Amino acid sequence: MLTGFCVEDHVKSALAEDIGFEDISSAAVEGDAVVRLNTREDGVFCGADVFRTVFALLDSGIKIKFNFKDGDRIKKGDCIATIKGPAKWIFTGERVALNYIQRMSGIATETRKYQDAVAPHKARIVDTRKTTPNFRAFEKYAVKCGGGMLHRFNLSDCAMLKDNHIAAAGSITAAVKKLRENISFTHKIEIECDTLEQVKEALNCKVDIIMLDNMNLVQMKDAVKLVGSKAIVEASGGVNIEAVNDIAACGVDIISTSAIVAGARVLDLAFDM
Amino acid sequence: MLTGFCVEDHVKSALAEDIGFEDISSAAVEGDAVVRLNTREDGVFCGADVFRTVFALLDSGIKIKFNFKDGDRIKKGDCIATIKGPAKWIFTGERVALNYIQRMSGIATETRKYQDAVAPHKARIVDTRKTTPNFRAFEKYAVKCGGGMLHRFNLSDCAMLKDNHIAAAGSITAAVKKLRENISFTHKIEIECDTLEQVKEALNCKVDIIMLDNMNLVQMKDAVKLVGSKAIVEASGGVNIEAVNDIAACGVDIISTSAIVAGARVLDLAFDM
Amino acid sequence: MLTGFCVEDHVKSALAEDIGFEDISSAAVEGDAVVRLNTREDGVFCGADVFRTVFALLDSGIKIKFNFKDGDRIKKGDCIATIKGPAKWIFTGERVALNYIQRMSGIATETRKYQDAVAPHKARIVDTRKTTPNFRAFEKYAVKCGGGMLHRFNLSDCAMLKDNHIAAAGSITAAVKKLRENISFTHKIEIECDTLEQVKEALNCKVDIIMLDNMNLVQMKDAVKLVGSKAIVEASGGVNIEAVNDIAACGVDIISTSAIVAGARVLDLAFDM
Amino acid sequence: MLTGFCVEDHVKSALAEDIGFEDISSAAVEGDAVVRLNTREDGVFCGADVFRTVFALLDSGIKIKFNFKDGDRIKKGDCIATIKGPAKWIFTGERVALNYIQRMSGIATETRKYQDAVAPHKARIVDTRKTTPNFRAFEKYAVKCGGGMLHRFNLSDCAMLKDNHIAAAGSITAAVKKLRENISFTHKIEIECDTLEQVKEALNCKVDIIMLDNMNLVQMKDAVKLVGSKAIVEASGGVNIEAVNDIAACGVDIISTSAIVAGARVLDLAFDM
Amino acid sequence: MLTGFCVEDHVKSALAEDIGFEDISSAAVEGDAVVRLNTREDGVFCGADVFRTVFALLDSGIKIKFNFKDGDRIKKGDCIATIKGPAKWIFTGERVALNYIQRMSGIATETRKYQDAVAPHKARIVDTRKTTPNFRAFEKYAVKCGGGMLHRFNLSDCAMLKDNHIAAAGSITAAVKKLRENISFTHKIEIECDTLEQVKEALNCKVDIIMLDNMNLVQMKDAVKLVGSKAIVEASGGVNIEAVNDIAACGVDIISTSAIVAGARVLDLAFDM
Amino acid sequence: MLTGFCVEDHVKSALAEDIGFEDISSAAVEGDAVVRLNTREDGVFCGADVFRTVFALLDSGIKIKFNFKDGDRIKKGDCIATIKGPAKWIFTGERVALNYIQRMSGIATETRKYQDAVAPHKARIVDTRKTTPNFRAFEKYAVKCGGGMLHRFNLSDCAMLKDNHIAAAGSITAAVKKLRENISFTHKIEIECDTLEQVKEALNCKVDIIMLDNMNLVQMKDAVKLVGSKAIVEASGGVNIEAVNDIAACGVDIISTSAIVAGARVLDLAFDM
Repeated sequence: MLTGFCVEDHVKSALAEDIGFEDISSAAVEGDAVVRLNTREDGVFCGADVFRTVFALLDSGIKIKFNFKDGDRIKKGDCIATIKGPAKWIFTGERVALNYIQRMSGIATETRKYQDAVAPHKARIVDTRKTTPNFRAFEKYAVKCGGGMLHRFNLSDCAMLKDNHIAAAGSITAAVKKLRENISFTHKIEIECDTLEQVKEALNCKVDIIMLDNMNLVQMKDAVKLVGSKAIVEASGGVNIEAVNDIAACGVDIISTSAIVAGARVLDLAFDM
Repeated sequence: MLTGFCVEDHVKSALAEDIGFEDISSAAVEGDAVVRLNTREDGVFCGADVFRTVFALLDSGIKIKFNFKDGDRIKKGDCIATIKGPAKWIFTGERVALNYIQRMSGIATETRKYQDAVAPHKARIVDTRKTTPNFRAFEKYAVKCGGGMLHRFNLSDCAMLKDNHIAAAGSITAAVKKLRENISFTHKIEIECDTLEQVKEALNCKVDIIMLDNMNLVQMKDAVKLVGSKAIVEASGGVNIEAVNDIAACGVDIISTSAIVAGARVLDLAFDM
Repeated sequence: MLTGFCVEDHVKSALAEDIGFEDISSAAVEGDAVVRLNTREDGVFCGADVFRTVFALLDSGIKIKFNFKDGDRIKKGDCIATIKGPAKWIFTGERVALNYIQRMSGIATETRKYQDAVAPHKARIVDTRKTTPNFRAFEKYAVKCGGGMLHRFNLSDCAMLKDNHIAAAGSITAAVKKLRENISFTHKIEIECDTLEQVKEALNCKVDIIMLDNMNLVQMKDAVKLVGSKAIVEASGGVNIEAVNDIAACGVDIISTSAIVAGARVLDLAFDM
Repeated sequence: MLTGFCVEDHVKSALAEDIGFEDISSAAVEGDAVVRLNTREDGVFCGADVFRTVFALLDSGIKIKFNFKDGDRIKKGDCIATIKGPAKWIFTGERVALNYIQRMSGIATETRKYQDAVAPHKARIVDTRKTTPNFRAFEKYAVKCGGGMLHRFNLSDCAMLKDNHIAAAGSITAAVKKLRENISFTHKIEIECDTLEQVKEALNCKVDIIMLDNMNLVQMKDAVKLVGSKAIVEASGGVNIEAVNDIAACGVDIISTSAIVAGARVLDLAFDM
Repeated sequence: MLTGFCVEDHVKSALAEDIGFEDISSAAVEGDAVVRLNTREDGVFCGADVFRTVFALLDSGIKIKFNFKDGDRIKKGDCIATIKGPAKWIFTGERVALNYIQRMSGIATETRKYQDAVAPHKARIVDTRKTTPNFRAFEKYAVKCGGGMLHRFNLSDCAMLKDNHIAAAGSITAAVKKLRENISFTHKIEIECDTLEQVKEALNCKVDIIMLDNMNLVQMKDAVKLVGSKAIVEASGGVNIEAVNDIAACGVDIISTSAIVAGARVLDLAFDM
Repeated sequence: MLTGFCVEDHVKSALAEDIGFEDISSAAVEGDAVVRLNTREDGVFCGADVFRTVFALLDSGIKIKFNFKDGDRIKKGDCIATIKGPAKWIFTGERVALNYIQRMSGIATETRKYQDAVAPHKARIVDTRKTTPNFRAFEKYAVKCGGGMLHRFNLSDCAMLKDNHIAAAGSITAAVKKLRENISFTHKIEIECDTLEQVKEALNCKVDIIMLDNMNLVQMKDAVKLVGSKAIVEASGGVNIEAVNDIAACGVDIISTSAIVAGARVLDLAFDM
C-alpha cells in the first residue's frame, strides 16, 4: 500500500516541515553515532520502510538493521533496530522518524488488540474513513499490520448509502435505484440500516453489504439471522474493546470502528545511544 | 498560523485523498440540503476556517453560518454551525471536514483541560514536536485555541541540546560553545538537564531556557530555586492530567507535554440533517 | 468525476506546457473579440467545465455562453458556445481549450456510437484502463457523457485476476483464495476466463464478475447460460463497431473495449470569429 | 527531449493515477516472473526510457533487456524486450508502461508512414500543437522517432500569425509590424495564408515561414513558385495519407498535420509470460 | 509574460519561505493601516501585478491603488501606490512584496539606462540567460519594462552554437550541418564568432544571427560590414555603460549583456505609514 | 542548511526553466568532454553541492572533482573543478550550474569583504530578509560560507517589532506587552529603535535584541553604553564597505546589511574546455 515513491514524497514534506531552514542544534555536530531504536512498552511494530526512508533522504551513509519486521509483536525493552552513521543527520531525522512509526505502531497495536478480542468468532475488525487528513495510507497500512481488514480506501471504491443519502432519495429502494444507474458494475453497494425494517428493504434491493448502525446485541442477532448468506453484515457504532467480543458473538462478518485509528495512542518508542 | 493559501493546498490534497475519482455514492444526489454541525460532547471548538475551506473548494454555493468561533467552549448538544447548499457536495465533503475539526477540537479540548488544571500557578502548558507528519500547523494552531502556549515550531527556530547532543560534544559547556559559534544571535538556546549538576553547568553557560527532564517534584523545586530569574524553566517528562498541578506548583514557567496533541482524543462532532 | 480544483490544476499545467514563457504571437494583440465554438462534424459534446476553466485561468473578463451541455448530440455547423472578451487571451487559450474538448467529445461520440449499436440488448459498453497517462479522469468522464458505463477507476477499486495472476498462483482457485485473504470485503472480484472450464472454476469460487476473454460467439452464449445470475458477465477482446451487436446478443451484461477511448478520433471542433 | 527527471515526475503521477492506494489484485502475488514485451503488429518502436522508468520506480530489482531501440522498425511477433523481477511489481506496472509505449509507438509508426509516403520529395512531415494536454513532450519525441521533424514546441518559441491575429490587426502588414515591435530577434515569424495575395503580402513583410492553409494543389504550386527561396513554405490542412505525396510534389518544404499525433492509433503491444 | 496563475504559484512559495509557520511579530496586530509605497531614488517602476498578488493571497480585504504602471519612470519621493487594509497582513506581506518589486524595478531601471545610452543608434539592448534560478520570468519581464528586447527565453527556443559546440563538432560548418538535421524549421540559428574568419564561415552556412564575441570596435565594424543584411549581428562581451554607445556606433543590431540583470542593483523602494 | 532533497527539487525546477522542451543546440552533440571550472577573479567559492546536483540530475555518468570547498578563497585563474562526461549534458547544464554558483560565490565574497573589514572588533556581519524570492536558503548559506552570521531565517523564528508595529500598538511598551501574550517562550524579541529614548524604553521591556536603526556614530556609541550587557545590540541602516569599520568601532555586537546579498555582484566563473 505504501508504494516507495509515494512514501518518499510524504517524508520529504514531513522533513521540510520539521527542519525548516536547518536543524540549528545539530548543524555543528561531528562524528558518527550508533543509536538503538527501543520500545518502552509492548505492542506491534509498524513502519520499517518509512523509517528507512527518513534517514535515506538525509544521508545515504546511514545504515539501519532491523530486528523486527512490520506486524511483529514487540515487548517492552526490545531493540527494534540499530542505526549507524553521521550523528548530525541521525539527530536531525530522529523526531520525524519516530513521529511516523510511533503512530503507525500505535495503530497496529490497537488493531491487534481488537482483532485478538474477537478471536473465536469469524468477525474481522476493519477501519473507517475517520483518518488524519493526508495520512490515510499510513494509517490503513498500520491497520493491516495489526491484523485488521480494511474498509473502503475512499469514496470511489465502494458505494455506501448513509442515512442522509437515503433521506435525500426518499427511501432505500429509491436511493439504490438511482445509485445503480450511476455507478460501475465493479463497485459493491453497502447500506447503513438503523432498523430491521431497513435491513429487509436493503435485502430486497440485493445490496452487497448491510451495515447495522448502532444496533443493540439483540437487534444485531436478529439482523444476522435475517440476512443469512444474502449479504455481508457489518456492525458499526458503539464499538469498544469491552463490547467487541459480544458484538462478534452476534455472528456479524465485519466490525468497523474508528477506535483502532482515531482512538489509538502513539506507542512509546525511543532512541537510545 | 493557518495562512489561507496553505490551508487550501492541504485541504485540496485531503479531498483528493478521500474522493479519489468520484464520490460514487453521492454523484447522483440532487437538490439542496440543510445540515447542522452538532457536538455530542463538551469541549473546545477549533477549525472554522478549515471547515469553510473544505466546502468552498467543492461548491461555491455552500453557505455556512457558525454559532461559535475557534477557542469557544461548547456543550454537548450545541449546534456549532449550519451548512446549506447542494446536498451532493455537502455529503462529499462531510468526512474530510469532520476529520479536520474533530482532531483540532480534540487537541484544543485537551489543552484547555491541562491549562485549566494549573490555573492558580504561572505555568503555561506547551506542546512538543511529537506531531503527526505534515499536520503540525493544524495541531499547533489547536493548542493555541485551547489556551496553550507553543514550543518551537521546528528545528530552525530555537536551539535545543538534548542528551545525545551533549554526549556527542562531551559536556554541556562544550556543546554550548560549539553551538554558539554556529547559530544566529536571534535564536535562544535550551538545555535538557537530568540533574541539578547539569542545571548549574547550563546556568554557567548563560543559556536561555533550562528543561528539567523527568525530574521528581523535589528536584524540580530545587532547580527552580537554583535558576531564579536567570533562565526560563521548563518541566518535561511524566506529565499527565493528575500530575500537572503538582508540577506547576514547583514554580516552573513552562510545562511541555505531548499528551495534549499525541494523546488527545478526537472530539465527537457530527452532521445532523 | 471532474472535481473543480483537480481540473484547475490539470489545466494550469497544460497551459504552462503550451504557453511556455509567453504567447509571443498574441502578446501585442489589443481589444476584445467575439468567437464562436462551432462543430465541423456530428457527434456528442463533452467538456464545458474544462473549457470554461481554461479561459477563467487566463482572464476573468472572458464570458462564455454554452448552447449545449455535456452529453448533448451536436450536428455539423452547430454553434456550441460563444466566447467574448480580450482577444489576446482568447487567442492564447484557444488551442489548449480545443485540445481538451476535441479529445473528450471524440470519446463521448465514439462511446455513444457503441452504446447505440447494442441498443436492443441489455449490454452496457464500458471502458478499460488503456487510457492516456495522467488524462484518465477526463477520458472516463467522456465515456459517461457518451452513455457508457465505467469499468474500475484504477487498481485499488476492484480486484481483477488476469491470466498472469492465475499462472503465478497455479490456478483460479488458488489465486482467489490468496486474494480473499488480502483484500477488503468492499471490493468485488473479477476473473478473466479463456475457456468454459475456467468459467466453471471461477463460479465455484463465487466471484462477482466473470470476464470472457476473446471468446467466440458460441462460447460466449454457452458461458452466459452457464453463469446465469450467479455473476456478472463481461465480454472483452475483439470488440469493434461491426461485432458489438452480435456480442451483445449473446446476453452478456457488459462489453468492455479500449476502442471507445484509445481508438476514438478527436472531434473536429473549431473557433470562428 | 525527454529529460530523465521530467519523465520520472510524469511517470510517478501516472502510476499514482493507476494504482490509487494499492494494486489489490497483485498485492499478495509472490515470486519472480519473466515477461516478454511483444508486438502484435508491424510498426516503429518508441518509449524504451519511459518503460524503464515505470519499473524502476516500482522495484529496483526489475531488470529489462531491450532488443530494439527507439525509432527501430518492429515486425508482428518481435520480442521487443524481456523483463525479469518480482512478479507483483511487474504486474502492477504493466498497464501504465504499455499505456505510454503503445501511444508513443503508435505515433512513431504513423509519422513513419507519412514521412515514407513523401519519400522522393524534399518535404518533411511535422506535427502541430494539437496534442494531448500534459502529454506533449512524449508525443513530440515520438514524432522524431518516427522520422518526422517538429513544428514549434509551444507558443513561446516561434511566432505564428493566424487568420484571427490578422483580422484583429487589420492586415498581415499591420500584424507583422506590431509583432516585430514586441518579439525577440531570436524568433522566426510564420504567417498563415489562405490566398496568393496573402502570400505576396507576407513576402513583402519578409517573414520567415509562409503557411499555405487549405490550398489546393494548383494554388500550392503557384505559391511555391512565388516564394522561391525567400521563405520556408509549409502546407497545412486536408493532409492525409492518400493526399500527402501530391502535396509534397508541389515543392513545399514542410507538411504539417495533426494526423500523425491526434490521428494515430495505439500500437498493439502486449506482455506475454 | 507573467501569466496570472504562474505568478500566483511563485508568490505562494515565496510567502511560505518568508512566513514559515506564522509572522509572530504581527500575529497580534489589530486594526487597519494605510501605507504608502514610496521610492527613495529615481528609476523605472516594475511589478504592479506581482505586488497585488502578494497581498491578495494574504487578505482579500487589502485594497491597492497604483499611481504608476509598469515601465513608468519614477522620481525620488514619488508615491507609487497606496495600500489600505488589515495592518497585520500588510505588515506580513511587506518584505516579500518589496523583494519582488525592488529587484524587478532595479532591472527595469538598469535596462532603461543602457537602452537610453545607445539612443541615436538602431541597436537594441537585450538580456542573457545569466538569470537567478527559478526567477527568470520576472527578470525578463523587467527587462522589457525597461525598454529592452529579449534574447531567447531558454534552450529550446533558439539554437546557439558556442565555442564548445563548435569545438566538439570540429568546425562551424560541421556543427551547423549536424544541427540542421536535428532542429525544427521554426528555430533560428545563432553562431558565436571570435574572428572575422568565423563570421565568414557562419555566413556561408546561412545562419540567422551572428554573435560577435568579445571583439574590439574595429573588428565589430568590419564584421558588420561583412555581414550586411545577410544576418542579424549581435555584440556580446565587455559591455558596460561606458562602452555601450561605442559598440552601438559600430552598427550592430543587438547588444546583449548580463549587466542589466545580474549587474542591476535593487531599487530603493519602501513602505511609509 | 541546504538539505540534499530540497536542493534537488530547486535545481530540477531551475533546469526545467532553462531547458524547456530540449536544449536544441546540444541535442545532437556526441562524445565526451573534459571541462574546467575556472575563476576569472578573486573571491570566495560557494556552491559545490548545488553544482554537483545540476549535473547528477542530467547524467549520472558525469564526474566532478573539486579542488576547493565551500568558503575557500580563490584567486583569479584558479581551477575550481574538473568536469568529465558526455559533452551534450555538460553543455546543457553549464548555464544553470553557473547561475547558482556565481550568485552564491558573489555573496560569499561580498560577505567575506565586510566581515574582514570589521576584523579587529567583535562585531559580526549578518544578512537581512531582503533576499530573492524562493532563493533565500542559497543566499543565506552563501553568507555563512563568507564568514557572516545569519539574522532570522523568516518571520517565524524571532520576533522583531519595527516602527510600523510600534506605531500600530501606540508604544514600544504596549507593543511588547501584546507580543509577549502571543509568542512562544522560545523566541527572542528584537526592537527597532530610532532614538536613545526608544532604546531606554526597550531596555525597560527586557527585550533580547535592540536594533539601532539609521543612527549616527555618536548615537550608536551612546546606545551601546546605555545597553551594556542587558541586550544584544544590532546596527542597521547606512551600512557600506567604507562605513562598516567605524560602525563596528562603536561596540555594537551585530551589523546587519542587505549589501552582502542584494548588493553582491555575481562572481566571474566560467567553463573552459
